[in-house]
Amino acid sequence: GGPGVGGATPARDPPPAPTPGRVQIEFRALAEQLGAEVVNPPGGELDITGLSALKDAGPGDLSFFHDHRYLDDLRATGAAAVLVPRDFAGDGVGRLPLLKVDSPSLAFDEVTRDFLAAEVPRVEPGVAPGAVVSDDADFDPAAVSIGANAVVGAGARIGDGSVIGPGVSIGAGVGIGEGCKVYPNVVLYDRTRLGDRVILQAGTVLGSDGFGFEFDGKAHRKIEHFGYVQVDDDVEIGANCTVDRGRFGRTRIGAGTKIDNLVQIGHNVTLGRHCIIVADTAIAGSTRVGDHVTMAAQVGLAGHLEIGPHCIFAARSGVTKSVPGGAPGSPAFYSGFPAAPASESRKLMVYPRRIPEILKRLKAVEERLEER
Amino acid sequence: GGPGVGGATPARDPPPAPTPGRVQIEFRALAEQLGAEVVNPPGGELDITGLSALKDAGPGDLSFFHDHRYLDDLRATGAAAVLVPRDFAGDGVGRLPLLKVDSPSLAFDEVTRDFLAAEVPRVEPGVAPGAVVSDDADFDPAAVSIGANAVVGAGARIGDGSVIGPGVSIGAGVGIGEGCKVYPNVVLYDRTRLGDRVILQAGTVLGSDGFGFEFDGKAHRKIEHFGYVQVDDDVEIGANCTVDRGRFGRTRIGAGTKIDNLVQIGHNVTLGRHCIIVADTAIAGSTRVGDHVTMAAQVGLAGHLEIGPHCIFAARSGVTKSVPGGAPGSPAFYSGFPAAPASESRKLMVYPRRIPEILKRLKAVEERLEER
Amino acid sequence: GGPGVGGATPARDPPPAPTPGRVQIEFRALAEQLGAEVVNPPGGELDITGLSALKDAGPGDLSFFHDHRYLDDLRATGAAAVLVPRDFAGDGVGRLPLLKVDSPSLAFDEVTRDFLAAEVPRVEPGVAPGAVVSDDADFDPAAVSIGANAVVGAGARIGDGSVIGPGVSIGAGVGIGEGCKVYPNVVLYDRTRLGDRVILQAGTVLGSDGFGFEFDGKAHRKIEHFGYVQVDDDVEIGANCTVDRGRFGRTRIGAGTKIDNLVQIGHNVTLGRHCIIVADTAIAGSTRVGDHVTMAAQVGLAGHLEIGPHCIFAARSGVTKSVPGGAPGSPAFYSGFPAAPASESRKLMVYPRRIPEILKRLKAVEERLEER
Repeated sequence: GGPGVGGATPARDPPPAPTPGRVQIEFRALAEQLGAEVVNPPGGELDITGLSALKDAGPGDLSFFHDHRYLDDLRATGAAAVLVPRDFAGDGVGRLPLLKVDSPSLAFDEVTRDFLAAEVPRVEPGVAPGAVVSDDADFDPAAVSIGANAVVGAGARIGDGSVIGPGVSIGAGVGIGEGCKVYPNVVLYDRTRLGDRVILQAGTVLGSDGFGFEFDGKAHRKIEHFGYVQVDDDVEIGANCTVDRGRFGRTRIGAGTKIDNLVQIGHNVTLGRHCIIVADTAIAGSTRVGDHVTMAAQVGLAGHLEIGPHCIFAARSGVTKSVPGGAPGSPAFYSGFPAAPASESRKLMVYPRRIPEILKRLKAVEERLEER
Repeated sequence: GGPGVGGATPARDPPPAPTPGRVQIEFRALAEQLGAEVVNPPGGELDITGLSALKDAGPGDLSFFHDHRYLDDLRATGAAAVLVPRDFAGDGVGRLPLLKVDSPSLAFDEVTRDFLAAEVPRVEPGVAPGAVVSDDADFDPAAVSIGANAVVGAGARIGDGSVIGPGVSIGAGVGIGEGCKVYPNVVLYDRTRLGDRVILQAGTVLGSDGFGFEFDGKAHRKIEHFGYVQVDDDVEIGANCTVDRGRFGRTRIGAGTKIDNLVQIGHNVTLGRHCIIVADTAIAGSTRVGDHVTMAAQVGLAGHLEIGPHCIFAARSGVTKSVPGGAPGSPAFYSGFPAAPASESRKLMVYPRRIPEILKRLKAVEERLEER
Repeated sequence: GGPGVGGATPARDPPPAPTPGRVQIEFRALAEQLGAEVVNPPGGELDITGLSALKDAGPGDLSFFHDHRYLDDLRATGAAAVLVPRDFAGDGVGRLPLLKVDSPSLAFDEVTRDFLAAEVPRVEPGVAPGAVVSDDADFDPAAVSIGANAVVGAGARIGDGSVIGPGVSIGAGVGIGEGCKVYPNVVLYDRTRLGDRVILQAGTVLGSDGFGFEFDGKAHRKIEHFGYVQVDDDVEIGANCTVDRGRFGRTRIGAGTKIDNLVQIGHNVTLGRHCIIVADTAIAGSTRVGDHVTMAAQVGLAGHLEIGPHCIFAARSGVTKSVPGGAPGSPAFYSGFPAAPASESRKLMVYPRRIPEILKRLKAVEERLEER
């Protein structure tokens, strides 16, 4: 370790913020690429050489503004140019060049991908040192990357373009689709199945035994779980999550569903398509969740429930009964513990605040009765 | 990866549900083995060739029924035969062959084990490629299996019949009993001790330092933790759990206790025997829990508590004080936050629902007083 | 596995509690080293040979007493000598030798470190078997220890005195300071930065992609996250935690902050210095937390909040709005969900208990009105 290794420490200069690279895009070319309306065009050429938040942006940086909470940051930003919504009035930004687009966040993401494509080294296909690959695993080493010290079990199949990180453990009979990213130290138990373009962040475990025991009067006897976990196309699962295998049959995560970190999915759960499950949520065994359901953070669902499509559960909802869904554009909102329609839960939360007033009025009534 | 690798995706045919195998058992032999009473005996020979849930079962599949919520599934099942409770009346199942047994779930599990024994390849003993084993580790390579890229530290001892998964990290001086299953990427810190037949699902960490600091006026000074974690016989711990080592002495999980995924056990906790700890529960340091205690999901216990035996804590209970236990067959129920006997907690939860009625009655009283 | 391997099981003798070693310190030398006032000095020489809790202590063991809840344990202890606070009256301990010190816990910790230094084998520097180290990784193999089967990516830099555990995955461009301890199977995504003396317990993941998606009307589109995680000097993070990288810029954990197990930190969060974050807490994206903030267990913070310095959040607080801080020695207390100043939350929790009384008084009033 030479000097500067510990450069992350606050007592010294902070390290240069890593940016995607030394690529550059000229402002006018960028406006054209994004179909943006330009406000405050720069006098001459303006090269965009970095990407940053409003607060941290410096010369050459492109940033974006999409939430009025950050208006002060916009007005004070050192960015070279900022992506803003089409309906942004533009007050108080002086001569700051603006690019008006439909979605500043998605436009920024598009530019990000251009920068990353030019800068981030592509993962090389092949089998890295230390990886232990079963003789009968089935993949094309010219099209798949197996990370250092990963383990690939008997009969596993991996589709083209998939990247398996270091230390990943892939069990026997696992099937992985095309274009998947499996980050380091993920564990896939035997016979787990991933669709295409699935992303698994580090440390996540798919296929652990369901939590099933029967008390025989003396001890809890383990119920064998021989099902599997199926993860459909375009699913992303965060870091250090756990998804149990079914007792038989499968635990299934529907296509396009996105799951945050430290989420627990019980055995034989079925999650619909395009759901959003935020951090620290736990779903107990055999519950079935419809499509387009959102669960904010720290939600809990009991087992054996039926959750309709297009539901939104507020953070910390504790769902103890099956609930009907909503419709596209008109979701059903639930909150509280036990969870109820959000309008009811809100009332229940507010009622107790009226008790001091009730006690005061009650005392006044009692005193008037005494007086007579 | 050839065609079909991505077969898990919904746009294509689902993959054949993996079943335990191509073994088969004749119906009458099965009835005899299980001591079952037969209803609707099949006309001729009937070979059971698979195991499935009522909903998914097809020809040749055995299924089971043990909960009246699934009566519709039973009546519509395509199973070849179904295990049912002895007292099941059998209405509406037509000519479906039934096997009446004491516990359909346990009987199904027994058949499962027969199928699995015949089908699932046994793990071969020996040390797999890439495993790094200390010279003075003590185990019989003809009786123990060490997975690929696992690490076994100095002085570790592993009992016969134990299976250590790929990527597992076993610290110095660890003791593992006989017949244990340690799934991939588990971490056992130095001197962790496992009894016999312990099961640790993937990614679980035993022996991390307890969370102990003392603020010296400027900074939080780390208190050294040099204790260890002891896990007794027949314990199962789920995936991605954490159990901290004691500051000194041990953190102990009692025999037969079963722990679900993502559970946190603090330093110097003692868990009794035959407890059930469901997902996302956290138990703070030095708390002592009696035998036969059940904690439903997302429970929290403060530190330094004494929890009596035969308690049941409802989901999301937040336990802030020591509580007395119950007796076999007559457990003490607690719920709520702060946790109280469940009857009290229920009342406290229901009271606020009476506030609208109270306000109405109060208004009526006030108006009558005004009228006079 | 020879006899005794399964010795951890309760049916047999418990294993000898592992102690830091066979070192010994004479009582009077110890008193001098600690600047302790001696009560009940032993008659002759007294060698301290072990360290233990009051309850478990035996001949030769030093223990400590710092909390009156453990007075019974002190009076019954089998310890050879006990560290006590300077103001301890000493009743009821008979002839037990006592060492009065400012902080019994810190004094005990000091002795612990002496014992451990003499006993625990030092980790040898160098690269262990099976580790896969990039050619251009930058560290001094005579001053750094890389564990078995660890992976060190391109351009990673590691400071002197740091110990990287087995199975750790270090991404490209990661910077690690001096004197860090990274326990087994930790994952550091590309460009993660650790200051000096950082401790990461096993299974923790730093740098996973933030949970950011935009719904395009049909599906949730992933927002690229290319920021990084910066962990400043003297931070400790527990086991199986997750810290997401920033969308751009960094997620930052301030110097001296200590984080327990299974904690989730969202993308672009900034945690101040010297914070204490207890187990199972989750902090959503872009929230900024001041210095010296304490979060007890199972706390949740919404995203985009500003939390002032010197706040204390009670266990299970659910923080939905920005809150002002306190001052050194006079922290701001919050509790409840939604979190409010603790005095308010306490009232709101107590109010419903008055409803039975309210109903009784209301009934009495109604009856008196009827009577007339």
